[in-house]
Amino acid sequence: MSSAPASRDLANAIRALSMDAVQKANSGHPGAPMGMADIAEVLWRGFLKHNPQDPTWADRDRFVLSNGHGSMLLYSLLHLSGYGVSIEDIKNFRQLGSPTAGHPEYGDAPGIETTTGPLGQGIANAVGMALAEKMLAGQFNRDGHTIVDHNTYCFLGDGCMMEGISHEACSLAGTLGLGKLIAFYDDNGISIDGEVEGWFTDDTVERFRAYGWQVIPNVDGHNAEEVKVAIENARANTDQPTLICCKTIIGFGSPNKQGKEESHGAALGDDEIALTRKELGWQHGPFEIPADIKQAWDASDTGAAAQGEWQQRFEAYKAAYPELAAEFLRRQAGELPADFAEQADAYIRECQEKGEKVATRKASQNALDAFGPLLPELAGGSADLAGSNNTLWKGCKPVSAEDASGNYIHYGVREFGMTAVQNGLCLHGGLRPYGGTFLVFMEYARNAVRMAALMHQPNILVYTHDSIGLGEDGPTHQPIEQIANLRLTPNMRTWRPCDTVESAVSWKKAILRQDGPSSLIFSRQGLPCMARGSEQLAAIEKGGYTLLQTGEGTPDAIIIATGSEVELAVKAAEALAGKNIRVVSMPCVEEFLAQDAAYQESVLPSSVRARVAVEAAIADYWYRFVGLDGKVVGMTSFGASAPAGDLFKHFGITAEAVQGAVESLL
Amino acid sequence: MSSAPASRDLANAIRALSMDAVQKANSGHPGAPMGMADIAEVLWRGFLKHNPQDPTWADRDRFVLSNGHGSMLLYSLLHLSGYGVSIEDIKNFRQLGSPTAGHPEYGDAPGIETTTGPLGQGIANAVGMALAEKMLAGQFNRDGHTIVDHNTYCFLGDGCMMEGISHEACSLAGTLGLGKLIAFYDDNGISIDGEVEGWFTDDTVERFRAYGWQVIPNVDGHNAEEVKVAIENARANTDQPTLICCKTIIGFGSPNKQGKEESHGAALGDDEIALTRKELGWQHGPFEIPADIKQAWDASDTGAAAQGEWQQRFEAYKAAYPELAAEFLRRQAGELPADFAEQADAYIRECQEKGEKVATRKASQNALDAFGPLLPELAGGSADLAGSNNTLWKGCKPVSAEDASGNYIHYGVREFGMTAVQNGLCLHGGLRPYGGTFLVFMEYARNAVRMAALMHQPNILVYTHDSIGLGEDGPTHQPIEQIANLRLTPNMRTWRPCDTVESAVSWKKAILRQDGPSSLIFSRQGLPCMARGSEQLAAIEKGGYTLLQTGEGTPDAIIIATGSEVELAVKAAEALAGKNIRVVSMPCVEEFLAQDAAYQESVLPSSVRARVAVEAAIADYWYRFVGLDGKVVGMTSFGASAPAGDLFKHFGITAEAVQGAVESLL
Repeated sequence: MSSAPASRDLANAIRALSMDAVQKANSGHPGAPMGMADIAEVLWRGFLKHNPQDPTWADRDRFVLSNGHGSMLLYSLLHLSGYGVSIEDIKNFRQLGSPTAGHPEYGDAPGIETTTGPLGQGIANAVGMALAEKMLAGQFNRDGHTIVDHNTYCFLGDGCMMEGISHEACSLAGTLGLGKLIAFYDDNGISIDGEVEGWFTDDTVERFRAYGWQVIPNVDGHNAEEVKVAIENARANTDQPTLICCKTIIGFGSPNKQGKEESHGAALGDDEIALTRKELGWQHGPFEIPADIKQAWDASDTGAAAQGEWQQRFEAYKAAYPELAAEFLRRQAGELPADFAEQADAYIRECQEKGEKVATRKASQNALDAFGPLLPELAGGSADLAGSNNTLWKGCKPVSAEDASGNYIHYGVREFGMTAVQNGLCLHGGLRPYGGTFLVFMEYARNAVRMAALMHQPNILVYTHDSIGLGEDGPTHQPIEQIANLRLTPNMRTWRPCDTVESAVSWKKAILRQDGPSSLIFSRQGLPCMARGSEQLAAIEKGGYTLLQTGEGTPDAIIIATGSEVELAVKAAEALAGKNIRVVSMPCVEEFLAQDAAYQESVLPSSVRARVAVEAAIADYWYRFVGLDGKVVGMTSFGASAPAGDLFKHFGITAEAVQGAVESLL
Repeated sequence: MSSAPASRDLANAIRALSMDAVQKANSGHPGAPMGMADIAEVLWRGFLKHNPQDPTWADRDRFVLSNGHGSMLLYSLLHLSGYGVSIEDIKNFRQLGSPTAGHPEYGDAPGIETTTGPLGQGIANAVGMALAEKMLAGQFNRDGHTIVDHNTYCFLGDGCMMEGISHEACSLAGTLGLGKLIAFYDDNGISIDGEVEGWFTDDTVERFRAYGWQVIPNVDGHNAEEVKVAIENARANTDQPTLICCKTIIGFGSPNKQGKEESHGAALGDDEIALTRKELGWQHGPFEIPADIKQAWDASDTGAAAQGEWQQRFEAYKAAYPELAAEFLRRQAGELPADFAEQADAYIRECQEKGEKVATRKASQNALDAFGPLLPELAGGSADLAGSNNTLWKGCKPVSAEDASGNYIHYGVREFGMTAVQNGLCLHGGLRPYGGTFLVFMEYARNAVRMAALMHQPNILVYTHDSIGLGEDGPTHQPIEQIANLRLTPNMRTWRPCDTVESAVSWKKAILRQDGPSSLIFSRQGLPCMARGSEQLAAIEKGGYTLLQTGEGTPDAIIIATGSEVELAVKAAEALAGKNIRVVSMPCVEEFLAQDAAYQESVLPSSVRARVAVEAAIADYWYRFVGLDGKVVGMTSFGASAPAGDLFKHFGITAEAVQGAVESLL
């Protein structure tokens, strides 16, 4: 046994790979990987339950690098442990098409559990993963049959600690008693502007105790034994999340740059790397890992054994609870119940037949009441607006620290935390989150919305109170530019339905979607149900369709509308007597643009330039569809505080205005 | 003296006005005003230094209602104290055109120091105001002459406490030792979803102690004497901000709804209001305030006396330091040095003559070096990216707890907090803040950006690393949809300059602008200086102008470009031999659209439909200008991690692509 490599040598493999890769790319962040290498070595070799041969194993521990700029730490760990990240990949750090991007990108390499880099969001994703574990354990484990039982580990640095989202997510984690969440604070005293004491003087230990966390202070992050004991104590406490505060030296091992900002975000330089190799006693060439080091790191056998043991337990579970086991596998695979689409279509037809006039936020709740019983994987919630967002449906049961088997999370007034936690729920697997807030406060969560799109996560974002139609609360609460912002986000689907029917379709499409988020935008105020034939009903899914036309053949003019303004468009068309007016309802622009050119042309013939778009939101967006010759009836300023009816008149979003705009073009 | 109204009766005037106004509007939030009325009575009548006759008095205390939904608390206070808010205004609560909007709107009524409603931002504004006071005190006060010496008071509720921005702003306030900031936590245990214990279990006392605040716990918010003692203790500590934790009952006085969520956000109803009147012993009719109560509240005389005393001190200061006094008045008035525009123009001409090729973020720093010495009111900063954003210029001196006389704030990794603190600096007066981060992380601060626009504050937002041109850090760090989002924000000015000259113009325009924020968007990578004649040089300010044309008269095609893509547009135009191609540089779309129709037509003749826009950002935005017949060379997906040059080729943002697009239209 005396020949087994020491912890420090094993950690030095991470340091060497990290500084070499950053040097070769001439870009990147060596400081954090070199500073946290010792902690990572203890965690990954001593505790992390994972199988490099099956990075999707449901009961693996999750590992999140919230300080994502330290990506070479993760790539080193993945390479050394036996994941599909080769030494060539490491050499291609930060190059086009390489799985080793500047920051860890979910989906680029096996073993990357989430995309990190935007600070603070990794820890929030980790909270979501730990919450998913706790919920699934509550839903699936049975006496004597524990099939969901894993930890979520997260590394985070000063930047994550300063970001507000760390407050939101960690406060919630304390309230929900996420005892299997274990975070490591890389307390190195350095951020990009230099020594943090000039701008960050929190007593982080006391701060996290105030959240109800177990905090293990003053751990020497370069002492393997201290780190080991801390992790053991963290794991022993299953009632509270744990923060292990590790004092570390950024850029550990670099004689001239360690402990300084210089080692944070730039290559050390060839000379300093040579000195560091000497200091660390690492005598191997660039990208060279000796066989004994590689072997000591390789987790393939232990991982396969761990998964094999779990598989046995799962087989026993399956024998005892065949239906639950099948349901577990279905949900882990992200598959919907076989008849979901069919049942959804039946409900949509029913909505059309009923023709109810209700607010679309109420239509959304009705859709949840219809679809919810089919989907035990739904994990709903709202940022303290359950009764306004109508995110609670009849089958909702709140999740608490004591009982996490429910399906509804009271997120509190934490929009950003909520959305990033939802991303974590998605990434974990087994749950389909949706979460609500007022549309304008999407902005608080904006970068987590973007991260859902970037990571292709089917997060469902419920946004109510979608325009000046919210009325008296005034301009701070009235969305103007938010819908356009969502539509301009790559890989987003933004639905703004006009009635109960389109609302149900938007929910169906959001649930069916597997490869990205959907924003569902609903009104506060009541909206009438539009008449549709079966062809139109089927066409809603295409995102834009001809809702009505007052004549035959090529129309004289086209009115494009969404949501609450579809009613205005219809009234305007009907008032334009003797003209052939087409009304296009466009609940989802992105879906419409994803249709083939022939379909788009059939709805919006390029020869028709008399086009008016109407939406109670920023006008500019719609020139995309009406061009230089068309007109937009929309908002060009912020809103105001008044009853909704007064506002629509005041801002000129009326059927008369639409009619006038069309007439001016004919 | 025995006939003077008791504190409780005075507080009940607030309760009565609040419940009556909400009832009349049938919309609004009575709970918080009724819960915090007693605290407000003690603070406003016993401590607040203000003059209702001059709401702009420079040395007044600032009062911020961070829980802005409780707007009737503020309107009641303003009305009762003698500000220009009449009882008719109160009766018109939440009606179109009334100064008493659903949430307090800055500028709508005298005495509203900031717009609140989006939770957590009020306390961050308050931190900015207290910071402004401390900086100005450091810059202007002299021994024996204290002309800047006022407190900032802030009310906040559970929602503010849950929001991440409260962490960012309050952590920074602790570090900077803002001893004149005194916050009152309305600890009523209720948020919209109900009793907060299900989602908010922080030990807020310990949390704020961890930030370095003085915390005064367990104050009975309905006991005037306890509140008074707490405020005295808060004021006695000038080294630390103070949080006074007040236990209150939401909707205090309502027999059936107090202490419950039902009193939070809806009218109490006529019956309950009658019962509440009885319970409170308030025997007056709706909107009736007895004369003795009104008189006891009226602060006109005490306010005038306080301001008069200050004015005397200011005169003495003026006698001793005439230049400083003049400078103080100039800065408080928001006036620029008389020769600023002239000096700026000289510098702009110099930039054109020099023709340097540098990154525009460096050009921005050069502009700061040129303009900074003229503008002692500048208050710079960055969210921990000083060296990347190039926000430090030669005359920068950091602000610290010990010495706040400087002009540069290390905000730490707190984008949202920074931007909202900047709003507070603007609102306070006397300072012109600018603050930097990477463009993509504007999203973390997004709603504070919007609030700057809504409040017409001339906040300067510096955003560097503006496209895939940032390279290796990858898609999390590469802006795509952010520029469009800024442009679609009402009252924003978004500048994306192409070289040193346009960068200098953007700074000049941002500084000259008084009625709204400017976003200055700069490149990481070097950009060549464009050739310009004097007419073009002068036209930059118009936001869009003909930079070059390869022929005479009406062009065959127009290429519109911004920032780093202007170079590509010029190359493409030059490669299109034999064609008459116009290149329009459009550094600020909003400025261009604010020009008269004739100017816009002169730059973009409507007859020319062969139009190509090029920008390394989301393509969709530009259909606004190229219409249904034009083309856009831009991004339609997220970016990737690779050297910048590889990315421009990979995503097809090249001169060849622009050339090809033009050719396809001719």
